[in-house]
Amino acid sequence: MKLGRLNHIGVATPDLDASIAFYRDVMGATDVTEPFVLESQQVRVCFVNTPGEGGTAGTQIELLQPTVADSAVGKWLERNPLGGQHHICYEVADIHAAKAWFESLGKRVLGEPRIGAHGTPIFFVHPKDMGGQLTEIMETPKEAH
Amino acid sequence: MKLGRLNHIGVATPDLDASIAFYRDVMGATDVTEPFVLESQQVRVCFVNTPGEGGTAGTQIELLQPTVADSAVGKWLERNPLGGQHHICYEVADIHAAKAWFESLGKRVLGEPRIGAHGTPIFFVHPKDMGGQLTEIMETPKEAH
Repeated sequence: MKLGRLNHIGVATPDLDASIAFYRDVMGATDVTEPFVLESQQVRVCFVNTPGEGGTAGTQIELLQPTVADSAVGKWLERNPLGGQHHICYEVADIHAAKAWFESLGKRVLGEPRIGAHGTPIFFVHPKDMGGQLTEIMETPKEAH
Repeated sequence: MKLGRLNHIGVATPDLDASIAFYRDVMGATDVTEPFVLESQQVRVCFVNTPGEGGTAGTQIELLQPTVADSAVGKWLERNPLGGQHHICYEVADIHAAKAWFESLGKRVLGEPRIGAHGTPIFFVHPKDMGGQLTEIMETPKEAH
């Protein structure tokens, strides 16, 4: 596998609207996407766009608020009530090839590929197999034609 | 303040060489900088370069291994023995203006600006004032002439 683009850093928050205000008013973000509910992950989510090199799109901050306390992100927030860095997400060209790659190395892939917040297939790999980082692998979105 | 480039994600590790091997052999990184000791932070450090959009330089992964157990990163690893995401670092144009900005908002800036791993001045802001994220602010390196 070849290292892909660092698509986003997932940041959990107990209050999505307060986090959006923080990124706008404290950090100076000018481009934050409209929040929506991603039912498959039981989260309300939006993206803070950060500037990349030379006017390109940089790595995003994905803000995540659980919609249900008894969910993966809800339980994480119980242990980290202020919120914080929850996961890291890399792009790959082919999600099924990536799943086979991690599995061939004995890494625990958490479930089958499913559609993520960017509309392309994703899966997560267990943090205990990834240097303590919950790692999301997402298929790079195809450009619109 | 205007949101700057997401320069790097700081990832703490109990074994820098094993982490470099992980990024190379599992994640497929092809560009990892030579490790060096950053005395001011009591860490041995290197950077994994990730590809940005359109061939630009992406957000880096900064791997950090404490050189002393009784240090900031050493104590963090005691609580998180596998390692994991330790901090997030944004670039700013002017480090002193950024310090004044965060202080004017009542954010706890941890010490005076000092030279960081990229050779430019940096400071950290307390995670409890930043949505649970230890946040590094660094002055953007000047281009070589």
